[in-house]
Amino acid sequence: MTHSLDDLGEFSLIDRIVGRLGDAAARDILVPPGDDAAVWLPPPGATVATIDVLTEGTHWRRDTMTLGDAGWRAVAANVSDLAAMGALPEMLLVGMTLGPDVTVEDVDALAEGMASACRAHHVRIAGGDLVRGATTSVSIAAYGTARMRRDGTPALLRRSGARPGDRVAVSGTPGASAAGLALIEAGRTAERAAEPLLRAHRHPRARVALGQSAAAAGVLCGMDVSDGVLQDLGHIARASRVGIQVAAGSLPLHPAALDLLGAHAALDLALGGGEDFELLLCGPGELLGSLSRTDLPVTLIGRVVAEHPGEVTVWGEDGAPYEPPRRGWDQIRQAARPR
Amino acid sequence: MTHSLDDLGEFSLIDRIVGRLGDAAARDILVPPGDDAAVWLPPPGATVATIDVLTEGTHWRRDTMTLGDAGWRAVAANVSDLAAMGALPEMLLVGMTLGPDVTVEDVDALAEGMASACRAHHVRIAGGDLVRGATTSVSIAAYGTARMRRDGTPALLRRSGARPGDRVAVSGTPGASAAGLALIEAGRTAERAAEPLLRAHRHPRARVALGQSAAAAGVLCGMDVSDGVLQDLGHIARASRVGIQVAAGSLPLHPAALDLLGAHAALDLALGGGEDFELLLCGPGELLGSLSRTDLPVTLIGRVVAEHPGEVTVWGEDGAPYEPPRRGWDQIRQAARPR
Repeated sequence: MTHSLDDLGEFSLIDRIVGRLGDAAARDILVPPGDDAAVWLPPPGATVATIDVLTEGTHWRRDTMTLGDAGWRAVAANVSDLAAMGALPEMLLVGMTLGPDVTVEDVDALAEGMASACRAHHVRIAGGDLVRGATTSVSIAAYGTARMRRDGTPALLRRSGARPGDRVAVSGTPGASAAGLALIEAGRTAERAAEPLLRAHRHPRARVALGQSAAAAGVLCGMDVSDGVLQDLGHIARASRVGIQVAAGSLPLHPAALDLLGAHAALDLALGGGEDFELLLCGPGELLGSLSRTDLPVTLIGRVVAEHPGEVTVWGEDGAPYEPPRRGWDQIRQAARPR
Repeated sequence: MTHSLDDLGEFSLIDRIVGRLGDAAARDILVPPGDDAAVWLPPPGATVATIDVLTEGTHWRRDTMTLGDAGWRAVAANVSDLAAMGALPEMLLVGMTLGPDVTVEDVDALAEGMASACRAHHVRIAGGDLVRGATTSVSIAAYGTARMRRDGTPALLRRSGARPGDRVAVSGTPGASAAGLALIEAGRTAERAAEPLLRAHRHPRARVALGQSAAAAGVLCGMDVSDGVLQDLGHIARASRVGIQVAAGSLPLHPAALDLLGAHAALDLALGGGEDFELLLCGPGELLGSLSRTDLPVTLIGRVVAEHPGEVTVWGEDGAPYEPPRRGWDQIRQAARPR
């Protein structure tokens, strides 16, 4: 049995959500959820902040993802933007727009999904807003801190920080999330080998510890893979005014994606599939190599050059240019979504 | 002639928006708009942060408000939450969801409306997110600072700070925004006397200086009128566990509302109409009286008592209880909207 939101008023529903958040709600800060704004004492450093909007129909669909999964993804996507700066994420503010079809049980699932992701990423929810609208949507703003270096500048990973001579690295196995979505859409979720790919799509993890380690080690350039490795490397190439050369054969592909979808599709999904939240890092080879000794593997996939600034080139194992797969995700045109 | 968003990609549209924002975009911070997150050095003090979601159809309608007005309101509503804490607002993050009917010219108007409100409130936009969806919506997260008192606690206005013996004050002329909406819906926008009420509805001002003055003077309790004076005083009464008595005859009504809508409607709109962004303050009478000497008039409208905790009572000029008007705004039930 499901319950209509009309059975509860705004303030009862907020109380219910805060209850479902459990210890993911920041109850011990100076002003916890429930006043006009949240108040807390930040650690020393620079403020790092970002906002993301996830909308049903655009960023998730009920037939491929539960509202609990959508809640997890919204938190992970947002935390990932701070991880991509090398910052320590701390607090989230959540704006929920509830569509006409949303039940009380749906709201519970959304809150519980967000709470699980908050626990996994060591962040808490300091406040929020709750409205009705025609479409269900979650907006999250994340706040964190970047530590200051001894020279008084913040330790940050910037898109503009790549220099000719740098190597390019990526964490984990990009394309796993897109492979998971491809399997869901193909009705292949019951296959046992699909499980890690489904998890990568539904419960992605932001690379918070790696981002901080890289920034602390002196890496200057990084971003997270939200629109696809190729498109996101393009952002770095343009912001840094450098060329980037990627060796297709060096991309770390997920073994389950190779097994279930084949080498060609796995490579295409790794280059073009978004929302993995893996980190792309550019820096001296020895510096990036030292990061490989952390829990999360980091793989060298290319190099930064002075030629063709703003351009990303992919080389096949035969030494010939590799025809890039479909472009990454464009929020406005939405024409390039991996199917 | 209008232009479809499909003519521009996501990144061209973001560049265009940042251009329209002009000096309302925070270009000189450590990491300005364009990276994974924004970075700035906050002034000393406690972090004060809030998020608001405004959705077309729920919070504004195209027939009563332009997208430029909606942009202004979204900024003012958000800044007002920080003003209501007595904080200094500094930076905004903006998440825009653009519906299928939105043109490039609409986005220009939205950005320019936000930019005007940012200039009026001395805040800047540090970053954002842009997505397509079924419904147009604006989410804004605001970030500011509360100064620390000499005893090491932040100077804040809390909903829970009212004490028996306190007086209750309100700034400006609550109900002006609701009166403006009533005139728009009655087709009376051409009447010259309506102009200040239309402006109050379309371009409301958050009471930032008053909030900070009150917190610095030692006032401990405040909130902004977003859901109506009566409903919002109810929040204070419950959070502070006190009773609140309001003298209906003391409410400062807008002269244009009195002229155009009559005394009874003007009083009802002042008690029940939301989104004025005036401040409600509770504190010792002499402290509140001293605030009346600022630019913005502050009027004493009631008192805080120990009896009937959580309840707000309105007394008519005849000494008898005044029948409260319709309830304020409930985001979930939406049943109580002033028509």
